[in-house]
Amino acid sequence: MNESSTANALPLAHRTGNFVGSVIDSSTTLLAGRTHDIVKFAMGAPGEDLIPVEQLDEISGRYSKGRFDYGETAGEPALIEQIVALTEAHGFPTADDRIVVTGGAMQGLDIACKLFVNPGDLVVVEGPTYTNANATALSYGARLLEAPTDEHGLVVDALPDLVRFAGATPKLIYCIPNFQNPSGTTMPAHRRERLLELAERWNAVIVDDDPYGVLRFEGERQPTFHELSPNNPRIVSTRTFSKILAPGLRVGWLDVSPEITPLIVAAKQAMDTCTSVPMQHLVSDFMRAGYLDEHLGRVIPMYRERRDRMRAALADTFGNDAVATDPSGGFFLWLALKNQLSQVDTEALVPDAIDAGVAYIPGPAFSTRGDFRNALRLCFATNEPARIDEGVRRLSDVLYRAAGERGAA
Amino acid sequence: MNESSTANALPLAHRTGNFVGSVIDSSTTLLAGRTHDIVKFAMGAPGEDLIPVEQLDEISGRYSKGRFDYGETAGEPALIEQIVALTEAHGFPTADDRIVVTGGAMQGLDIACKLFVNPGDLVVVEGPTYTNANATALSYGARLLEAPTDEHGLVVDALPDLVRFAGATPKLIYCIPNFQNPSGTTMPAHRRERLLELAERWNAVIVDDDPYGVLRFEGERQPTFHELSPNNPRIVSTRTFSKILAPGLRVGWLDVSPEITPLIVAAKQAMDTCTSVPMQHLVSDFMRAGYLDEHLGRVIPMYRERRDRMRAALADTFGNDAVATDPSGGFFLWLALKNQLSQVDTEALVPDAIDAGVAYIPGPAFSTRGDFRNALRLCFATNEPARIDEGVRRLSDVLYRAAGERGAA
Repeated sequence: MNESSTANALPLAHRTGNFVGSVIDSSTTLLAGRTHDIVKFAMGAPGEDLIPVEQLDEISGRYSKGRFDYGETAGEPALIEQIVALTEAHGFPTADDRIVVTGGAMQGLDIACKLFVNPGDLVVVEGPTYTNANATALSYGARLLEAPTDEHGLVVDALPDLVRFAGATPKLIYCIPNFQNPSGTTMPAHRRERLLELAERWNAVIVDDDPYGVLRFEGERQPTFHELSPNNPRIVSTRTFSKILAPGLRVGWLDVSPEITPLIVAAKQAMDTCTSVPMQHLVSDFMRAGYLDEHLGRVIPMYRERRDRMRAALADTFGNDAVATDPSGGFFLWLALKNQLSQVDTEALVPDAIDAGVAYIPGPAFSTRGDFRNALRLCFATNEPARIDEGVRRLSDVLYRAAGERGAA
Repeated sequence: MNESSTANALPLAHRTGNFVGSVIDSSTTLLAGRTHDIVKFAMGAPGEDLIPVEQLDEISGRYSKGRFDYGETAGEPALIEQIVALTEAHGFPTADDRIVVTGGAMQGLDIACKLFVNPGDLVVVEGPTYTNANATALSYGARLLEAPTDEHGLVVDALPDLVRFAGATPKLIYCIPNFQNPSGTTMPAHRRERLLELAERWNAVIVDDDPYGVLRFEGERQPTFHELSPNNPRIVSTRTFSKILAPGLRVGWLDVSPEITPLIVAAKQAMDTCTSVPMQHLVSDFMRAGYLDEHLGRVIPMYRERRDRMRAALADTFGNDAVATDPSGGFFLWLALKNQLSQVDTEALVPDAIDAGVAYIPGPAFSTRGDFRNALRLCFATNEPARIDEGVRRLSDVLYRAAGERGAA
């Protein structure tokens, strides 16, 4: 027994060595305290004007009353009913025994990792991806395998060779199949089917994160993993109201095979007992009043117009010097720099860009390996069309100036 | 590489084998669907009439408006300010750089275990204790060491021998120092000091859970661990508004040395991004309006009266056949059965008690080992005095009948 003392280091668990902050968030903290005019393409949340504040306030003051006691860990039945109705209305019906309400999609990811990731397990992630999810997997001791993506999302056929090279089969495959963050791309049905085959072969779990799926501007919805493989317990779908309603509510849900809901409830009970009861009723009352449909009917055309405006401005301004993805929904597009811009370091350039009045998230923030130094994420959803033009103009000034200085150096 | 397939068991992480449900909650689920008159001594939450619903509704409709965006992971500054003011008003001042807002005390426990517990680590818990916390420690692979308690809480001087016998020093010591759940007992200062010495010697962390501390009816406040050892990074204090305001809000806080707040923020960021922003503002606006002080001024004398009534009813009814603890605050007392009642199995008797119209939580629900079969927890806080008398009468009927049947068998 060790009875030595005092000068000991804090007895931290090994996993704390794997804690990483959010690189995405730290890219936006540079904005704090800056008071000059900045066109903000950096954010991943609906703009202030795109959160239905008035109606949320109205519901807060009117409906969501008197429900301040503990709720069931699986979620308030009234909210679960509305969630099921939402999935039916959008063509991917689920069932109430598949739902566990969470404190947002991030808690869904945390629970998925808690259920399936042992220290040392291989976890496949997309490159680029939402690296805050990588941080969650790392906090459970995952080894990350960053797999390539193209204009159709995850390059699923690349996985068998990558996995062979890694020398271990993956335990979990994390993907954002619709309007991916940061690329805006969507995986077609045949890639989803192939991914299901591989997951089956490897006995791996697919964690399917879809915060933007219902924000579709055009084209056909691709089938969910659940539609392709009903009630498969190796599919964990994490969902949220953050992007379609408001992120500060911290309400989301897991949609999983009823086979694993008891484990999820046991995990969540030991994590936070239940999700905020008034917030659950706020969301369900908001939906029952028809306000969510109304809100989506208002914002989707706005987001579509803004995407069009940004793509047009980028094409006009950069020509062949930058290639943007072509998202049919969601918040983001991904800009890859080419030709004379191809050597620009988007991460190093962030402070200059902020000085010049434009904010973006640099490519390396979306890669565990720090890849994508010559790419960046732009959120088209939060700025009005005229501001988008102005922001792209400022971005082009900064990028070409950096390329020129580089050329001159 | 394992390319075998299909018939594989779900690839669950090892830790899921340690998931246990809440034995406390499962004792109350027996109540669901029962429609006859039951005096509920089982609950651990303020009664419906003891949540300031009207004022919470008023604040929901009036103040907490328009704050639906993401918040800082550490918590909303407005709430942190009110938390610091609360601790100052109650004589145990903290500082804003020591606070991280959580989704209730349970999330604080989850984060503490995430930071400090490796699989196989020894965690000391009190017996009896709030076993939902044990479940959290188990979910990180802890080995639990249940230490004895007496009328002054944890018997700290018993720890060195227990630890020696366990063959490993503890990594974490979980205690509820004030008005303990379930016993209602309070640890005096000298035991707290001794526990700090032992934690220092063992390089262990004290996790101090204090949901009831400000609900003091009489007598002197005992010093907090932080007062006895300022800014000691081995003290993690988890706090909540659940018992002093309303549990469904899911708002609490960690009070820790600023040395470890960055790790806590990193952990929480990968768990749920932040705690519900409207809920944080609801609580802070409620406090700023002076409503929490007002509420505490109203309920503390009510709880005191109810404790007195329950202790009197128990003494009148059971005489020496049952010994109740004498809590000077909080919600609970602990009833140990003696003499002719000493062989009654309180767990087996729960369905009969519910049939007879009285609900309690049996002793074994508070022990990882299933101890305390001849004891039970009574919540005195949720029922009006006349109902308390009626409930104790029903309890005595059930217990003496069980003892008689046992005697006759």
